Amino acid sequence: MPNFNIAVLDGDGIGPEVIAEAIKVLDVVADKFGHTFAYTKAPVGAVAIDQTGDPLPEYTLSLCKKSDALLFGAIGHPRFDNDPSAKVRPEQGLLRLRKELGLFANLRPVASYDELADLSPLRPERMKGVDMLIVRELTGGIYFGEKGRKDNGNTAFDTCTYTRMEIERIVKMGFVEARARRGKLTLVDKANVMESSRLWREITRELAQENEDVELNFMFVDNAAMQLILNPAQFDVIVTSNMFGDILSDASSVLAGSLGLLPSSSIGSTVGMFEPIHGSWPEGAGQDRANPVAAILSAAMMLDHLELREEASAIRGAVNKVLGQGVGTEDLRPTTKVGTREFGDRIAAAL
Amino acid sequence: MPNFNIAVLDGDGIGPEVIAEAIKVLDVVADKFGHTFAYTKAPVGAVAIDQTGDPLPEYTLSLCKKSDALLFGAIGHPRFDNDPSAKVRPEQGLLRLRKELGLFANLRPVASYDELADLSPLRPERMKGVDMLIVRELTGGIYFGEKGRKDNGNTAFDTCTYTRMEIERIVKMGFVEARARRGKLTLVDKANVMESSRLWREITRELAQENEDVELNFMFVDNAAMQLILNPAQFDVIVTSNMFGDILSDASSVLAGSLGLLPSSSIGSTVGMFEPIHGSWPEGAGQDRANPVAAILSAAMMLDHLELREEASAIRGAVNKVLGQGVGTEDLRPTTKVGTREFGDRIAAAL
Ligand SMILES: CC(C)[C@H](C(=O)O)[C@@H](O)C(=O)O
Ligand SMILES: CC(C)[C@H](C(=O)O)[C@@H](O)C(=O)O
Repeated sequence: MPNFNIAVLDGDGIGPEVIAEAIKVLDVVADKFGHTFAYTKAPVGAVAIDQTGDPLPEYTLSLCKKSDALLFGAIGHPRFDNDPSAKVRPEQGLLRLRKELGLFANLRPVASYDELADLSPLRPERMKGVDMLIVRELTGGIYFGEKGRKDNGNTAFDTCTYTRMEIERIVKMGFVEARARRGKLTLVDKANVMESSRLWREITRELAQENEDVELNFMFVDNAAMQLILNPAQFDVIVTSNMFGDILSDASSVLAGSLGLLPSSSIGSTVGMFEPIHGSWPEGAGQDRANPVAAILSAAMMLDHLELREEASAIRGAVNKVLGQGVGTEDLRPTTKVGTREFGDRIAAAL
Repeated sequence: MPNFNIAVLDGDGIGPEVIAEAIKVLDVVADKFGHTFAYTKAPVGAVAIDQTGDPLPEYTLSLCKKSDALLFGAIGHPRFDNDPSAKVRPEQGLLRLRKELGLFANLRPVASYDELADLSPLRPERMKGVDMLIVRELTGGIYFGEKGRKDNGNTAFDTCTYTRMEIERIVKMGFVEARARRGKLTLVDKANVMESSRLWREITRELAQENEDVELNFMFVDNAAMQLILNPAQFDVIVTSNMFGDILSDASSVLAGSLGLLPSSSIGSTVGMFEPIHGSWPEGAGQDRANPVAAILSAAMMLDHLELREEASAIRGAVNKVLGQGVGTEDLRPTTKVGTREFGDRIAAAL
């Protein structure tokens, strides 16, 4: 009987509430399929700064390193966003975690739910058939390049650097994901301006020769930002750099109608990290209002990664069933409005 | 009687056709208001490469420098996009032109046309009241920073550098534009990751003290990409760096329903450049199908810049009138479909 050690990093705001529902659902799965999941909690983000002064305490990092997987809530608090002089910020914990764990790939699926078509900001005909995956490079580029000040602080610079190794591993993952889906890969870059983009194109063209079964195309990032709004159904898998991936994955995440539905995984080494894409929503915290589906579907992505595929699809089935009944938290404008906990209960029951 | 010398850079694809209609309309304005506009044409982009090997020939640049304003069509040809080894590319002409003429600010208005509400990819309720201006920095940042290769070409880098002077002049322009509109300015950046963004924030906070009548807020670029889709009406003026402005202005430009409607200006020194935001659409060239409105409204922005305000609003009035009659090119799905030339004729007649 397999036994999985799961590090649980609730984080800030609504993080603890949505993760609690994910664990509720995981416990039912464990029961039903005969697994044991052992959860260990550790602080990260603003709560970790308050407790220890460090957004990623040593204890948290070492726990993550020895776990089988990592379930992450959300981080961030307006207290830090509004303080430009803050030297320590919750986000630093997240960035260090990605780097230290070697999580070089962030995978973000976006699909339209027919039941929720009314929620999309796009017209229904534009959302038809939307089913894409953004593969974002997560530990390189301008996020981690050399940066600083010159001229007494009056000039600032950031460097976007990519090596062949960094590009190859993420683009390869893009080809693998595309092959497992509809066989289309789009490299998004700005090769008409950036030298690093030209290296991405070069390497991607080389890799295309070993991946001829996948249909490859190239798109400039400004055009991609338009196409995501005009015709998102054209995309299968998008692979792109850290910064472009940050922007495009957030843009595409609102198409489906609620951020509260979307999971993500960050992978690359042995431990994977699974996380709802929504933020910490501090104003909504502690009110039983947050949508737990993104966290629950993140748990499903975690099970897939642990090769518990049947278990993962059982969770997805339960979520779809409950959504299909018109049940949901307020953000979904459902026919039957429930709170965070009851939403989790119903999904657990539907298993 | 004022006399204006206008450099006309048709460029590639549909560039010449749409600019011809802008000139048709300008000629009626000249007649009606008693001006003389003298036009001088010069090559740029792919046609210039074909003629001279250079996307911005010396003759073109010196013509622009001694003109009062610059009317620009569009550039780009798939021949170059699909050739990674091309050393000379049409875009280089545009980038050099911006730098050489000191056009550090790109202004892109986006507003919803009630008559065309059906064309927007967004639901009509989301488009209500959309009326914004993106002020994009155009001659700095990662576009013009140091870039290159290391490790035998296997590592590539691009540098995003901003100086106090570069930031101050564009943010000041943002405050001026906001004051002339609804008094709201949003700085879009990635200050939780980029050092250059932190300098933008610092300087913007300083400038805010002399601009207390303008309501200022800050937004991360990933969030801005979402908000533009979720609730574009919240924005009045956005000010941002070159790369973020490239992405966000293209994203916002599709909201109104047709790229064929949107003008832009690039300003900063004495000569201003006025240009439709759409591309060169090579497949549509020479077929009398392109929408000339963006070029015509670019001519109106040019007149505003030359302080011919009454003349500029006469053009806008004529465009609105013809659009209100349900007349348009195919991209507008009009009740009365016309070609490029007839569309221009009708707008000229409505003057
Ligand atoms: C919090 C921030 C640093 C982070 C990022 O930009 O990567 C976030 O926006 C994300 O996408 O996970
Ligand atoms: C052609 C390209 C270099 C250019 C840019 O990125 O600035 C274009 O996308 C634009 O926005 O005018």
